Amino acid sequence: MAGKLIGIGVGPGDPELLTVKAVKALRMADVVSVPKAHSDVSSLALGAVRQILEDRQDPPELLELVFPMTKDKSEIERVMARNASAVADRIDRGKVVAFITLGDPMFYSTFVYLFEAMRRHYPGVEIEIIPGVTSLTACAATARLPLAEREEVVAVIPSEVDKCEVEEISRHADSMVFMKCARRFKELVTVLKRSPFEKSTVAIVRRCSMPEERVVVGEVAEAEGWELPDDYFSMMIVKRRDAEKERGDVV
Amino acid sequence: MAGKLIGIGVGPGDPELLTVKAVKALRMADVVSVPKAHSDVSSLALGAVRQILEDRQDPPELLELVFPMTKDKSEIERVMARNASAVADRIDRGKVVAFITLGDPMFYSTFVYLFEAMRRHYPGVEIEIIPGVTSLTACAATARLPLAEREEVVAVIPSEVDKCEVEEISRHADSMVFMKCARRFKELVTVLKRSPFEKSTVAIVRRCSMPEERVVVGEVAEAEGWELPDDYFSMMIVKRRDAEKERGDVV
Repeated sequence: MAGKLIGIGVGPGDPELLTVKAVKALRMADVVSVPKAHSDVSSLALGAVRQILEDRQDPPELLELVFPMTKDKSEIERVMARNASAVADRIDRGKVVAFITLGDPMFYSTFVYLFEAMRRHYPGVEIEIIPGVTSLTACAATARLPLAEREEVVAVIPSEVDKCEVEEISRHADSMVFMKCARRFKELVTVLKRSPFEKSTVAIVRRCSMPEERVVVGEVAEAEGWELPDDYFSMMIVKRRDAEKERGDVV
Repeated sequence: MAGKLIGIGVGPGDPELLTVKAVKALRMADVVSVPKAHSDVSSLALGAVRQILEDRQDPPELLELVFPMTKDKSEIERVMARNASAVADRIDRGKVVAFITLGDPMFYSTFVYLFEAMRRHYPGVEIEIIPGVTSLTACAATARLPLAEREEVVAVIPSEVDKCEVEEISRHADSMVFMKCARRFKELVTVLKRSPFEKSTVAIVRRCSMPEERVVVGEVAEAEGWELPDDYFSMMIVKRRDAEKERGDVV
């Protein structure tokens, strides 16, 4: 049997939001790999697959990979080369290594780093990618706020993007999604109040699809008064209400 | 038993990309509803769930809903009120109605229309939403092109968005995803060649995750020469290569 690497998106956290394909892959993988750096993220990803792994009669090896917490590019490359080597070593021995990641492997995931390191150092290794449900749409479902219709433009904006950039983007988007935004929540609301999103609906979803899930939905105008805990897994969706006016035919 | 409406995202087309939750819901729904207007879309969504429905000993009622092909707002509202009535009628009788949609119910889906019509005309009806894998990340997986890392901004742009808007958006995004873009492909490449995406990687994915899936990956500079069939289910991803240079720490 030839070994390979499988990048598996396990979805937002609820074990039922894994795909059938992800479940099958996790039932047969020889090694299950998780990033160690952000222990909270790793434990949430592991939590989503725990039952599948516990139900196995032949438990897989658990391989924790340390991801760099630095911005130093050469340090990142050094650590990632070591991770790639640990994975390649097992693949060489015919093992199937499943790297699990919350959400989707190609969407703000540490898998991208492993993927690129593998391609650089072990270009012959087979890599399969199983997409997953992202927090993007899972949060929209929880907040009951349609993310996009017809000709609406959606912008996905990570936590550290500059305030002026956010202002610029707000002129061209109908929906904006701010990833892991809790720390900057008040600052972002202030920006939104002076933008075309001034009269928008805003939803904050914490720990979407998990037992600790919390949702707040309201108006941008009132959001400055909200007191929100600084939870890493918080997402904010804003949707221009006037965008709906322009809606045309359905298909 | 109380009836309810469940909006189910069935993912990009591959039956294995349904979530466990979607599979369970489809095994117990009394009614499975699909939009009729765009017959190709409906049959693809049905194709993704066909086996689940065929395996049932008690096949569900199949409810085809006609969605308006017009931009006339009052006509849309009239047709959607009729659809909502057909759904509410079954829910009144204690039935669980599953509306299936390719991708995700809150992301460019006809479900949004039904959802809004139900909330307007039958506000007391319970509505559950099961998110699905979107073509956004499924295409990134197929093209093996990471959609976003760290502080990168992603813009999702539907097929009819104005060329000048695309130019503006290109100044503030690191990745752009053009939905159902086949018809405008050459025009978009011309815009990209004069944008910060001039030296980007571009991927076109047709019928992602389906048996007829096709992928082309290359450089924006060469893409004008590509001859692509005008397939409704085509998505284009462009990713600025220079964005990667700015990458900092991983978590």
